[in-house]
Amino acid sequence: MNTFEQFEKNESDIRSYCRSFPVVFKQARGAELVTREGKSYIDFLAGAGTLNYGHNNPILKKALIQYLEDDGITHGLDMYSDAKERFLETFNRVILEPRGLGAYKVQFSGPTGANSVEAALKLARKVTGRSNVISFTNGFHGCTIGALSVTGNGHHRGAAGVPLSEVSRMPYANYFGDKVNTIAMMDKMLSDPSSGIDKPAAVIVEVVQGEGGLNTASADWMRKLEKLCRKHEMLLIVDDIQAGCGRTGTFFSFEEMGIKPDIITLSKSLSGFGLPFAIVVMRNELDQWEPGEHNGTFRGNNHAFVTAAAALENFWADDTFAKSVQAKGKRIADGMQKIVRKHGPDSLYVKGRGMMLGINCPDGDTAAAICKEAFANGLVIETSGNHSQVVKCLCPLTITEEQIDKALTILDAAFAKVLGDQVANQAS
Amino acid sequence: MNTFEQFEKNESDIRSYCRSFPVVFKQARGAELVTREGKSYIDFLAGAGTLNYGHNNPILKKALIQYLEDDGITHGLDMYSDAKERFLETFNRVILEPRGLGAYKVQFSGPTGANSVEAALKLARKVTGRSNVISFTNGFHGCTIGALSVTGNGHHRGAAGVPLSEVSRMPYANYFGDKVNTIAMMDKMLSDPSSGIDKPAAVIVEVVQGEGGLNTASADWMRKLEKLCRKHEMLLIVDDIQAGCGRTGTFFSFEEMGIKPDIITLSKSLSGFGLPFAIVVMRNELDQWEPGEHNGTFRGNNHAFVTAAAALENFWADDTFAKSVQAKGKRIADGMQKIVRKHGPDSLYVKGRGMMLGINCPDGDTAAAICKEAFANGLVIETSGNHSQVVKCLCPLTITEEQIDKALTILDAAFAKVLGDQVANQAS
Amino acid sequence: MNTFEQFEKNESDIRSYCRSFPVVFKQARGAELVTREGKSYIDFLAGAGTLNYGHNNPILKKALIQYLEDDGITHGLDMYSDAKERFLETFNRVILEPRGLGAYKVQFSGPTGANSVEAALKLARKVTGRSNVISFTNGFHGCTIGALSVTGNGHHRGAAGVPLSEVSRMPYANYFGDKVNTIAMMDKMLSDPSSGIDKPAAVIVEVVQGEGGLNTASADWMRKLEKLCRKHEMLLIVDDIQAGCGRTGTFFSFEEMGIKPDIITLSKSLSGFGLPFAIVVMRNELDQWEPGEHNGTFRGNNHAFVTAAAALENFWADDTFAKSVQAKGKRIADGMQKIVRKHGPDSLYVKGRGMMLGINCPDGDTAAAICKEAFANGLVIETSGNHSQVVKCLCPLTITEEQIDKALTILDAAFAKVLGDQVANQAS
Amino acid sequence: MNTFEQFEKNESDIRSYCRSFPVVFKQARGAELVTREGKSYIDFLAGAGTLNYGHNNPILKKALIQYLEDDGITHGLDMYSDAKERFLETFNRVILEPRGLGAYKVQFSGPTGANSVEAALKLARKVTGRSNVISFTNGFHGCTIGALSVTGNGHHRGAAGVPLSEVSRMPYANYFGDKVNTIAMMDKMLSDPSSGIDKPAAVIVEVVQGEGGLNTASADWMRKLEKLCRKHEMLLIVDDIQAGCGRTGTFFSFEEMGIKPDIITLSKSLSGFGLPFAIVVMRNELDQWEPGEHNGTFRGNNHAFVTAAAALENFWADDTFAKSVQAKGKRIADGMQKIVRKHGPDSLYVKGRGMMLGINCPDGDTAAAICKEAFANGLVIETSGNHSQVVKCLCPLTITEEQIDKALTILDAAFAKVLGDQVANQAS
Repeated sequence: MNTFEQFEKNESDIRSYCRSFPVVFKQARGAELVTREGKSYIDFLAGAGTLNYGHNNPILKKALIQYLEDDGITHGLDMYSDAKERFLETFNRVILEPRGLGAYKVQFSGPTGANSVEAALKLARKVTGRSNVISFTNGFHGCTIGALSVTGNGHHRGAAGVPLSEVSRMPYANYFGDKVNTIAMMDKMLSDPSSGIDKPAAVIVEVVQGEGGLNTASADWMRKLEKLCRKHEMLLIVDDIQAGCGRTGTFFSFEEMGIKPDIITLSKSLSGFGLPFAIVVMRNELDQWEPGEHNGTFRGNNHAFVTAAAALENFWADDTFAKSVQAKGKRIADGMQKIVRKHGPDSLYVKGRGMMLGINCPDGDTAAAICKEAFANGLVIETSGNHSQVVKCLCPLTITEEQIDKALTILDAAFAKVLGDQVANQAS
Repeated sequence: MNTFEQFEKNESDIRSYCRSFPVVFKQARGAELVTREGKSYIDFLAGAGTLNYGHNNPILKKALIQYLEDDGITHGLDMYSDAKERFLETFNRVILEPRGLGAYKVQFSGPTGANSVEAALKLARKVTGRSNVISFTNGFHGCTIGALSVTGNGHHRGAAGVPLSEVSRMPYANYFGDKVNTIAMMDKMLSDPSSGIDKPAAVIVEVVQGEGGLNTASADWMRKLEKLCRKHEMLLIVDDIQAGCGRTGTFFSFEEMGIKPDIITLSKSLSGFGLPFAIVVMRNELDQWEPGEHNGTFRGNNHAFVTAAAALENFWADDTFAKSVQAKGKRIADGMQKIVRKHGPDSLYVKGRGMMLGINCPDGDTAAAICKEAFANGLVIETSGNHSQVVKCLCPLTITEEQIDKALTILDAAFAKVLGDQVANQAS
Repeated sequence: MNTFEQFEKNESDIRSYCRSFPVVFKQARGAELVTREGKSYIDFLAGAGTLNYGHNNPILKKALIQYLEDDGITHGLDMYSDAKERFLETFNRVILEPRGLGAYKVQFSGPTGANSVEAALKLARKVTGRSNVISFTNGFHGCTIGALSVTGNGHHRGAAGVPLSEVSRMPYANYFGDKVNTIAMMDKMLSDPSSGIDKPAAVIVEVVQGEGGLNTASADWMRKLEKLCRKHEMLLIVDDIQAGCGRTGTFFSFEEMGIKPDIITLSKSLSGFGLPFAIVVMRNELDQWEPGEHNGTFRGNNHAFVTAAAALENFWADDTFAKSVQAKGKRIADGMQKIVRKHGPDSLYVKGRGMMLGINCPDGDTAAAICKEAFANGLVIETSGNHSQVVKCLCPLTITEEQIDKALTILDAAFAKVLGDQVANQAS
Repeated sequence: MNTFEQFEKNESDIRSYCRSFPVVFKQARGAELVTREGKSYIDFLAGAGTLNYGHNNPILKKALIQYLEDDGITHGLDMYSDAKERFLETFNRVILEPRGLGAYKVQFSGPTGANSVEAALKLARKVTGRSNVISFTNGFHGCTIGALSVTGNGHHRGAAGVPLSEVSRMPYANYFGDKVNTIAMMDKMLSDPSSGIDKPAAVIVEVVQGEGGLNTASADWMRKLEKLCRKHEMLLIVDDIQAGCGRTGTFFSFEEMGIKPDIITLSKSLSGFGLPFAIVVMRNELDQWEPGEHNGTFRGNNHAFVTAAAALENFWADDTFAKSVQAKGKRIADGMQKIVRKHGPDSLYVKGRGMMLGINCPDGDTAAAICKEAFANGLVIETSGNHSQVVKCLCPLTITEEQIDKALTILDAAFAKVLGDQVANQAS
């Protein structure tokens, strides 16, 4: 049997990341992935933002093993459990209260980001009695039908098989360039009773569009968006699934912008350990759910409660971690700027914020070739963006400076190789 | 702070099971749940069918701790991992091959049942190019919009906030009683070009309707349904999320019926440990997915791969376990029949199959009162059904005979108390 | 230029009736159509039920010419006009009041049946705040998207291009034969909170399904349906577009059944002259429209008001006309029974009610061949039904007995020829 | 009985124009409406653009009376009739051929504009296999569900009762002012595979938005729109229901712009006499309809064929009429400019094109007051626009110069009175 025969024979052709990284991974620690054969890779993908604290973080791992050894509840539906209480208490004390969000409540939706988006949309529609929702160009919110309806990606939308309705698509910040005020555009359409845009229940937005290509919304744009929501009585849903949990240098991606979303969705790095976990955080007064209206089997993933509480306690009790993220973000951005200046000052540019960064390439083929070359040299890295043209760096926030530098060196070489080859090809 | 204050203050009012079981659980072993205060309960709910092998099964637990200690990959998107390969190999060898399903493939959808239903519906619509789907009265398939559209439950449907479209609802087996052939009805409507039922992509069906109240489809009905699917070129999707993984006495609920579904969804007890995990199993030739068309962050929950492989190996390598399930199922059914004969031969009856059993009460209030009384006496048990009128026994398949008997004794007393009180009230 | 070249060159291929009757008609009087070449045909199609009072009825024609000569308003949007007032007064006095419907109001929707159906559905949804609607197998209500969603015909549904949603399809009276009570079925599903049938705003039903193949609902079934509507707080919409205006022997098709629909749609023969005209008749208290909520350019077709008022006055002021319709209906039915007994007592049967009658053939090809043969001999007649298997007799209600007899003779010969040829073919 | 009692008692409250013009009209000739009491009004509403050739045009009236006296076919479903052939021949010879549209075909949809829009959308979706359609802010296309989905008006949309889906709403020409290129915006979104705008089947556009407030698209914008359609393989549907039939000074509103729509809808003034009539005109190769796929009872309104053919022959055989329309349009525009300069150079401005003109007022209340005052002085005139803020002049194209001048004098006085009163009120 060849290395991948089992997968090729038994797993659906839908598998995709494995096509970019044709090895079988076995172990992982911090920012490092190790194959079955023992080959080691620096992880600049980090579970697409799910492993902010690295693989198998020892503190979290210890807590989880202890919990297992104690026969702690693993699966608890939405029953009360000791582990859930601890998570709630920690999340409230460490995250919500210090950020002025003490009066928010937590819904344990199903354990996926898509599920928390589905729950958030349902709640917004229920509370407002409206069905239309505004979502943005290049937004990504998940692949279940409700979440997919607000997602922009055509590849995913094309597989829906049913109409994706009750959504008005609007241009994201700077979608039409710096000079076009997309908030004013929305305001005009929403203020016009004959624009054809039915009054929305909510706006759902990512502060940094991870899958969409690391497009960022400025604090100013977000504040105007919040005002727009107030003016037109729409709820503001921030999908912080990828950009949250510290990725941008603060726990929430929006917390230094002076806004208060009505609803926040969190998942990915929330468990801190890569375990499926998602929540909806909502203003107290929006909690108009009836018991059990939105349910699901895995709402009570207690392992995730355990590692999440440990992660919050360990990383967010003071601002040490946040500051280190900001510093590392700067280190990576600087390194990327160097690459850009060196290899393609006219055709390349850096995108993103915090440790959610990427280099925009002229096209998807170039970006793919760079990632492939980097992988050959020991770096797991992927693309994102509407044309898959952005080489996206999403390493664990706990990565060391040495690992960052090593990864950037690999990346630099990959850009040199690929862009150099292109020049050579054009010349020939 | 009172016992539940943290939850009441910070958790959304949507929480529901905790309202029936107002205690804080801390530990669990096998068929036993233990509160923070050390009080022990027999678990006749079992995570709504998620804990077929009991809480913290020692074999699975050992495998998981070992995996953690070895720094095995936890989160792997859909990259190749050692643990995934082992799961695939084991599932194929132990489950699919022996059941003549060797030519089926596995899709790792998101880790919830709802997500696997969403993926199955998308695939069926893609493959057939049609959008309508047939689902059944009292069917339950999940709460994300795609899954909710095929779910019957009005409480959940009412919270959708958007139209639930592209579904034709049909009467389940025996929905109109023994004498009405619901397959013939469907055939007539599907054969009539002006019936208004657009040609469906698929039929989605549960062989036993867990949430719907333990309604069962006979082998004969299922075979006719399969034929109907062939005749009208619809795919047959069996949602075996609750009834599968051994619950009815065989791994799949349908495997002794002589049918071969086109697509099967599995979740709940698949990981064997209560960890979020779900798959779509499909005929080889239906695997027409393009890479990444339906994706999600937690498709690669490697902890679940580890426990699932261990569970399959441990419980399904031979037929010992299946036989014990069948025997225990009989024991429970017999016990229930006794309760029925004793307390309400005219108003009560036993429903279900295998270890998926329940007693149908005259109404939901009665059933709720019985569950409440049982809980007061040490038994965690819940209702299901369209009027929540079925007292549902869904204990771990690994439960001991002693535990069964003890639970039935508690249940017997609860029926006596509640029905006795009712008689007393009516007399007064 | 050949006879049809202009049509073939300039008219869309969507044209259809002209394919069955490949001649160019020029004039028409009563039950007679005359081609450009002067050939005369008896009209057993009557504009698919639009010409109940015959072509160019002299009384109506005179009124219309007079109105034209007086420069009466032709097009009046929904402004007040003398002609509209006269129609309203006449309709109320001659039709509504004597039938106990004096407290109903009239909405002038757009001048097509489909438009009145769209308006009726909107109103029902608005008044009840629900969106689901029940419609029946083989029901036909029009081809605009709202009307099409409640129509059963697959050929028309297939051309929608968008989802036809918010409709639950139910079996019509006797759809599953005499012994299956389809009202009880609906009641069970509507009473079951988990059936998946969302609480409907309304039921829309034809008392005789014209396009569906002359299926009839009994008075008993209609009364039970009315009760079902009251029980589940659904509005009862009777689409009397084809079966109304006297076609069944009374002005409304339901008026001897002892029911009072909440909403009635009328069109086709309402103008009495073949002019586009449609109205929605509703219980007073359901008239919750805001001004202009549903509008359209041709709501005020004053020519139709003029001819409609004249028709009502002339035909419905007393019961003479109704009685003659009943008598002629019997004459036609008797004639058809003779044909059935003579040519195919085992394979043919008579369907319908009043002067809305047809002979059910074994298949659509046979029915088409019979119509073709009849046309060759001077009779314009068409098929209906889900397999186009019903030879449908829908002659003007003003047809003479001689014309009836002549038409039946032609029909008899056509059955003889076609069925005889079939026997001959089978024998050879 | 008071003057309106019959209406108030028997007609639905949905009636609307009659509220602005509380009189009962009885006769009409040319640009004049006459009440039952003999009071005469100049008609600046003209059936909302349905009476381009005036009321009861004598040539058309004569043709219709003659046809009636000859017992011509009135109602012909979609059978071949002499009158239909004559219409087709005339329309092709007089309109299509000279405009380079000889290879287009005509579909006789139901006789309302909404129905032709429904048919056009169905056809576009069928031909392209896509379901999304682009429509514009402030577009108006009708009130049946399919047509309503592309309509912008919130009042009408709000009455839908069902989701209006499969439409992407885009900003019309100049919607965001002169400096924002809305074509470039659309191009960016349509070129972006992750914009969330699913590839559209078609764009539906009005060259002048009649109900939307007389917004005009320039020739340059329309040409760019046509190019955009070609680039993204979308069909270009021009809804010329209100702006067509000569209203802008040429038969089609777009014919001097150098574009060729794929599909054109016509209705309103098409019959020339105010009779219900609508057609879909399509490129030959798009005529992929199967016989009868979209049908309706009143597709063959032969009276309308007769008057339409007469109107085309009489008004469009040479360019005399078109030139007179252009001249009258200038006369009205000049008169309006005078009103604007006199009464509100800062707050009023003239909008529109050809004889489709209006004065934009600061708000809807002002516009309504002006129309009310004008009506009191003998002028029937209405508002349009998203805030009903445009006083809209839509008189018959056959109006005399004297009538124009008289109407403008009344209008001038109404502006003086209403704006003068406002100044007085503010001062007091």
